Order: sequence, then structure tokens, then C-alpha cells
Amino acid sequence: MIVNTSNVFNFNTDTSGIMIIFGGTGDLTHRKLMPALYNLQCAQKLPANFAVVAVGRRYRSHEDYRYEVYASIKNFARFDMQEKTWHELRRKIYYQQFNFTDDSGYTRLADFLKQIDEQYQTWGNRIFYLAVAPEYFGVIVEKLQAHGMVHNGAGWQRVMIEKPFGRDLYSAQQLNQKITGVFAEKNIYRIDHYLGKEMMQNIMVIRFANMLLEPLWNNQFIDNIQLTSCEKVGVKDRGEYYEQAGALLDMVQNHMLQLLTLTAMEPPASLDTEDVRNEKVKVLSALQEFSPELVQKNVVRGQYGPGKAQGKPVSGYRQEERVSPDSNTETFIALKVHVENFRWAGVPFYIRTGKRMPYKSTQIIVQFKPLPKILYARLNGQMHPNLLVIKIQPQEGVFIQFNAKKPGTESQIAPAQMDFCQNCTDGLNSPEAYERLLFDALRGDSTLFTRWDEVEHSWRFVDTIAANWKQQDSTFPNYPAGSLGPREAEELVARDDRKWLHIK
Amino acid sequence: MIVNTSNVFNFNTDTSGIMIIFGGTGDLTHRKLMPALYNLQCAQKLPANFAVVAVGRRYRSHEDYRYEVYASIKNFARFDMQEKTWHELRRKIYYQQFNFTDDSGYTRLADFLKQIDEQYQTWGNRIFYLAVAPEYFGVIVEKLQAHGMVHNGAGWQRVMIEKPFGRDLYSAQQLNQKITGVFAEKNIYRIDHYLGKEMMQNIMVIRFANMLLEPLWNNQFIDNIQLTSCEKVGVKDRGEYYEQAGALLDMVQNHMLQLLTLTAMEPPASLDTEDVRNEKVKVLSALQEFSPELVQKNVVRGQYGPGKAQGKPVSGYRQEERVSPDSNTETFIALKVHVENFRWAGVPFYIRTGKRMPYKSTQIIVQFKPLPKILYARLNGQMHPNLLVIKIQPQEGVFIQFNAKKPGTESQIAPAQMDFCQNCTDGLNSPEAYERLLFDALRGDSTLFTRWDEVEHSWRFVDTIAANWKQQDSTFPNYPAGSLGPREAEELVARDDRKWLHIK
Repeated sequence: MIVNTSNVFNFNTDTSGIMIIFGGTGDLTHRKLMPALYNLQCAQKLPANFAVVAVGRRYRSHEDYRYEVYASIKNFARFDMQEKTWHELRRKIYYQQFNFTDDSGYTRLADFLKQIDEQYQTWGNRIFYLAVAPEYFGVIVEKLQAHGMVHNGAGWQRVMIEKPFGRDLYSAQQLNQKITGVFAEKNIYRIDHYLGKEMMQNIMVIRFANMLLEPLWNNQFIDNIQLTSCEKVGVKDRGEYYEQAGALLDMVQNHMLQLLTLTAMEPPASLDTEDVRNEKVKVLSALQEFSPELVQKNVVRGQYGPGKAQGKPVSGYRQEERVSPDSNTETFIALKVHVENFRWAGVPFYIRTGKRMPYKSTQIIVQFKPLPKILYARLNGQMHPNLLVIKIQPQEGVFIQFNAKKPGTESQIAPAQMDFCQNCTDGLNSPEAYERLLFDALRGDSTLFTRWDEVEHSWRFVDTIAANWKQQDSTFPNYPAGSLGPREAEELVARDDRKWLHIK
Repeated sequence: MIVNTSNVFNFNTDTSGIMIIFGGTGDLTHRKLMPALYNLQCAQKLPANFAVVAVGRRYRSHEDYRYEVYASIKNFARFDMQEKTWHELRRKIYYQQFNFTDDSGYTRLADFLKQIDEQYQTWGNRIFYLAVAPEYFGVIVEKLQAHGMVHNGAGWQRVMIEKPFGRDLYSAQQLNQKITGVFAEKNIYRIDHYLGKEMMQNIMVIRFANMLLEPLWNNQFIDNIQLTSCEKVGVKDRGEYYEQAGALLDMVQNHMLQLLTLTAMEPPASLDTEDVRNEKVKVLSALQEFSPELVQKNVVRGQYGPGKAQGKPVSGYRQEERVSPDSNTETFIALKVHVENFRWAGVPFYIRTGKRMPYKSTQIIVQFKPLPKILYARLNGQMHPNLLVIKIQPQEGVFIQFNAKKPGTESQIAPAQMDFCQNCTDGLNSPEAYERLLFDALRGDSTLFTRWDEVEHSWRFVDTIAANWKQQDSTFPNYPAGSLGPREAEELVARDDRKWLHIK
């Protein structure tokens, strides 16, 4: 993050550049990337010297492709379609067809980029966005290098990589070797799109810009922290991918651990990218190591069976498209983990994520300790705990629960609630995660991207769990669609005399 | 306050009793006391064995008086008139006419009370409520004793005294001597009706039942505390009283210092009456002593001149009814004072109260210190302070201002607000202060009443200011009606690089 006394973020390098999207006809490009570019254009945040070259395996003319993009923007951009803005963007969009393993295609691409480069005065600056299946990550970067599109002496070249970054620590290391053989670490933008969400960026602000909270953010005052991300939907048409991933790889390895690091990290020395990342890595490296016994005890996996969603019957995971009828893939995970440092010793972090749950909600719930059992606590018995909740999605905001006198009573205590919702008002329309991430990549700010050692630590944590699961039979399905997960998840917290919390 | 493990407040003595109201035809009785009794009857909080005897100087039959009370309840009670409930109350209401200095009247009253006592089985229990001009306080208690209505061997006898309790320390001591000659301290209920307000009772709960606040409530985290009570109205028809009192005696000596003690007090050993009162007295005795120089420097007085209220011209104080055309009485006061103990050393308490201000509002505003100028504070420069506001009236609630990321920006910080309003929802109708106070007096709980040493300390503080003012000419009027007081009040806080805050 670039710190600047004028309170305006300047671009730290020339932001002119070409964005080359591999997977140009894919879902991600149409649903997220192109709408994000359009949104940036509306917000006048795209550089003047800028072009997009989409690469795909299907045949399209530039015009055909632009026509498709137009439809996607209409459907998915947060700003309404303004023909004038679209016109500005559309003439910067190009399409190249070739197979990602085909050398002649890269030769053509290199030539085309040179031509575009001159036309748009983008000085050799390039972002290669890999919106493709992970098996292509390696081959694409190697071919880019082989065809002289990286380190060609002019400008900067960056690569943006979608998840999953590997399938375990070993494959991630292999992949990373290939990529770092071509791009320097500082030019690798590993995407965890959660980090682009408004409220994820707000976690650090809320923690480090408020005297009301900063002094309380430790094991002296906090009882436990719950990080939950529930989805209402099932696996939809992503069965093929999901069978390989499961909740552990799809959610915990990346998003949930990012939630954890931002919540638990020490204040960094500055807001500079590396200072922030260093602190995040420190949290990951302080994660309690999971013995096989601990996995058995503190990690619960689940898979949804048939059940109900919005009152209608829905099928179980094993009945979903492209899912094995005896699949052993988890669609739910709940775990308890400790961050073993001075700040957090003794404070459990409960993580819970799953599909086909009763509601969609990602929240950080900070539950404060009870006060000593004197005064009102003596008079009223157990009081409701103080809560601070950071709502990530779909609502974005902050919620506080505190205790007050129940009006009209002599001295009874009741919990009172305060809610700050920043996307509840009409017309307040937060930027999409990808909007922020593309903007940051263009200006060379990699704070909201994942550094290699973060990835490495996350895989270490996740691999221990996965390895243990392989040794044990699951009892899937073990929760009906539309429920809060298996009974064991409740027991995980009940054992500690606690409850999963959810703030509506 | 009676602590009871069953979480229900029991009466600690026989609550049967007669309430004798001196000043039965006065404003306070009609506007506050009778409606409060009716509200208590609605809430089924009046004892079964109960009667009211109103004493006044005007001639009324019991029936005439009841008729007048009926009208007052219709106008001023918070519950709608229910004929059945009124019928239950009305047959317990009686009227006695005599002059408060007239012995024969007291003889008749004593006889009447005996008769009522038998009829209602009230066992000699009596509360004498002195809703009369202060010059009658002394004579009434003496005559009550002389006519055997106190300490007559049966039941309990209590006295409730309206403000003002004296006009300075000396007169308060004289008055107190007279009253304590007749009633024991524990049977004297000195009213500060602010203490009966819902949110005043909530201050201790909010402070002592929340882990989110308790650890922060000291000079390490708090920058300053502002106690404000603004009135929109002028002196109305109370010119005669107000000329003697002024804002210092009318508001600061009692209400504002009560706000201060509840905000600043240490946690008491228990919620028992004397434990709470002891802590309040400790705050008053820790108040910074005001030298003449300090009064000049840290106390600002004002008097409103002609101006506007709701857009319409209104007259100045000196033009009000029964006010001297060259009156030197202050209608506004602002002051800065320190509580000289370990908890509050270095934290100024700013007190501000006045008439004919732009809005009606009583609030405790706790402004937290800024965080060190690193991270976001370095990036954004001076940020808005964290605020915790306890709203006493007319809104009752809690307000928090904290910092969050301005949505859609890269890293700009903006203040976010959270509001908990407990009387904003329709149908939530907090008990009136007098309702609670009469209820407490009946059950013998004097926690919400002022102990003599509180009064004594308050007068000491206030006398120093009054004495200094007598030596100095005022420059009245010095603020127009409808404004926020004299310029000097702004300067008082501006000198410390602070601002008066007001939360709408």
C-alpha cells in the first residue's frame, strides 16, 4: 500500500498497460472481470493508456467478442449501462484465439501485443490474468517467457493467478517454482477475491483506527472469536471442481484463513505491503499444530444430504451433477484452532463454513469475556456477552451487542443492539472485489494479494487436516440440506460451554 | 438498593402506607405526582393498603379534589385513562385544607390520618411529601413532630423533599438541622428527579455491565467528558423562582453534578444504597477546588437576550414576567472541572447547561483519545474521535461513533455512527422519573435520592462560584435566545483544542 501524505493514493509506477486475460470466454471473465473493468471505467479509474486482450480457445472476431462482453456488462456490472462509457471501453477490447499449449498462438499474441502497445502507448506494461483451469497456470507462464513476453526490457509484466493455487503444499510448491521461474514474487498477484471485499479491507481499519476497540483486542478481554461463512446454495454446476476441492480447500485454505489473519494480526509497523503481509504470515505460523488426535477432536467435516432450501426439497450433494454417488468430499467444515502467541493464548478461534446452510452470511463475531460476577452480574446472574460483529457479506457493516437496563424495570439487564450497515441504504453500492483487485494490480499495489509464504503456511495447516481425514472413514451425508451442519459441529463449541452465534 | 438472588426486588419493609402531599393543589402534584401514582396503579405497583391525603391552602371537598386530579391524570399520565383503574385509585384520594403554619390544621390532619390508618390498615406508615416552596420545609416538619405524626411508635415515617435544598451551603445546613431534628437521615428522601430518569439509572448499568466499556473508562483512554443539558424554553412563568436560583442553583448544584458523579464514580462494593452513595460522595470530594482565578478562567455564565425560538422572535430574560429589568441572574453556565483522582487525572469534565438554546437535549458525551499517529492516523491525518454518548433526554439511548473505511475508497477513513434509542419505537414508553421515585420511597429504597453529604459537597462547589460572581460585574445579556450561549463558552473548550459536541 502506498503511503502518501496528501491522503491520495498515487500510482507508484506508470499505470499504462495491457491486460491479457487467458480464459477470455470463461465465466469469470464475463461475470466478474469485464464488469469490473466497466465499473472502473465508470469511476474513471482506468488508466488513459489501456487495452484488454482476451485470449480464448473459441473462435471470435473482436466484434463478436465485444458484443458478448456488452451483454455481460449489462447483466453483471454494478453501474447501469451508459453507452458513452461503454463506447470508450469497447474500442480497447480485443480478442485472440488459440489453444493455451499452442506455440504459434503465443507468437501471434506477442506480435499483436507489440502492435497494441504502440497504438495505446502502453510501454510494454502488461498484466497477464490467468482465468483458466489450474493445470494451465504452469504452461502459460512458461510459454509467455519462451515467446519473449516477460522481461523483454520494456515496462513491467505482472501475472494474476486465480485460485486454487495448488491442491496441497507439494503441488503448490511445484506450481510456485514454475511461476517464480518467470515472474519475480513482487510481480505475482495471487488472488483471494475475499481480500477485495469492502469489509475485509475494513477489518484493519476497524481494529487500528478506533480507541474504543484497539485496547480490547486481546485475550484479556476477548472470550472467543467465531469466523463463519455460510452459503445457502449447494454445489450448483461446479461439481467437477468441487469434488477435487471440498470446503477445506475451497474455503478454509484461503478465505477463512485470510479472515483469521486479518482478525488476529499484530498492528504492522506501517501499512506498506510487506509490513502487512509479514504480520499476516506471523499469525499463520503461530497457528496451533494439529496432531491426528487434535484433528479428530477439533475438526468436524460434513456433507449435505437431501433436505430443503426455501421450503422446497433439494437433493443431497451425492445426487448433484458431476458428483460421485459415494463422494467423500466435505461440503461443511467446523474447527477450533488457537493462535499461539501472547495476544491470543487461551482464546479459541472457531471457524465454520458450509454449503446448503439456512442462510448466506460471512461474519467475524468477537465475543467479549464476561465481567466479574459482582454488581449487576451478581444481581442478574449470567448476562448476555458483549459482541462485536464485523459483517462481511451479504450485509456489510458492524454490529454491537451490549448490556443496558431493561426500560421500566428496577434493575434488570437486557442486551441492546446497535447496527451499522453500510450497504443497506439504497444507492450505496460498494465496489466489487474484482474492481478493487484489478485497480490495485494496475497500480502495482499487491497488499490485497497473497504472498507465497502465506500460501505455504495455509497449505501446511490444511494438509494436516486432509491427511488425517484420508485415514478415517466419513459418515456422509451427515446433515440435511438447509440445516446448520452436523450435530458434531454444535458439540465442538458446546464442549467449551459456548454456542455458535449468528447475527441477522 | 435491595439485592436479592431471585432477581426480583422485594419490599424490605411493610409497604402499606399513607402518602401525605403538602402542596396538594400545586403544579407539581397535578402534573407529576398524581399522574405518577396513577401510572403505578396501572402497573400494579401501588401497595394494596394505600391512601393519599393531599394538603392545600385552598378549599376543596374530597370530591372536588378528586375531580381535579382526574383531569390532571387525563392530561399528564403516560397511560391512557382507564375508568376501572381510576376508580380504584380515586377512592384512596383525600383532601385536607389548612395553612401550613396553622396548628389546628395539623391537629385535624393527625386525627384524619388515624382514621384513614384504620380504614386502610396502613399501620402508621407515612410518607410526607413536601411539594411546597422551600420556606415551608422547616415549619412543616416541626409541626408534624409537634403534633405527634412522626415517631409515634407505629410503623415508619419518611419525608420527601423537593429541590431546592437550601440556597447555599449555610442555608442548606440550617434546613438540614431542622429536618434531621425530626427525621433520621435514612428516612429523608431528598429528590433530584433526574435520578429517577431511566437513562440516569442506566449509566451505572452501561458502565458496570459491559466488558466493551468498563476497561476503557479512565484517563488512559478517555480524552474528555462533556455533560450537557440544553433547554429550548426560556424561564416561562417561573421568573420569581428563577431570579433566586439561576442556572447554577437550578441545574448545576443538583442535576449536572449528579450526571458527573454517576459518570465518574468508582465501581461500588455492591449495589446497596450506602455503597453507591459513598462512591458518589467520593467523586464530589475529589472535585478540583476553584480558586477565584479558576472561576474566572474555567466558568462562563450567560443570560439570554432577545432572539428567536422556532423562527419566531422571543424576548430576553430581563423582559420575562417577574424578572428584574436589570437582572444579574445567569440562564446559562459552562464550566470545566477536573476530578482529582487516579482514574480521572488529566481528563477535563465540561459541563454546559442553559435556557433558550437551539434544542432540548441532555447528554453525556465521552470522547476517547486519539490513537497514536501511526497507520491510518498517519495516512489520514487527524481522524474523528471515537465517541460514546449516553442520551438522557428527550431521546433515551446510546450512540457510538467509530471509524471505518469510507466505502469505495482505497483507504480513506470516515466516522460511522451507531444508535440505540430505547424510546424511539412507538409504544415504548419509559416510566416517568416520579413514578420510579415514589415507588422507591414506598418500598424504602433511597438509592436514587440524595444523601446529605452529597448535598453538602455540591453546595461547597457551587458556593465558590457564586461567591466569585458576586465580586464581578456581569455583561448580561450576552447571548441571543436560540443560540448556543456566549462566545466565551466556545472559547473555554477551544482553548483546549476541543469543541462542544452534540449528537442529534
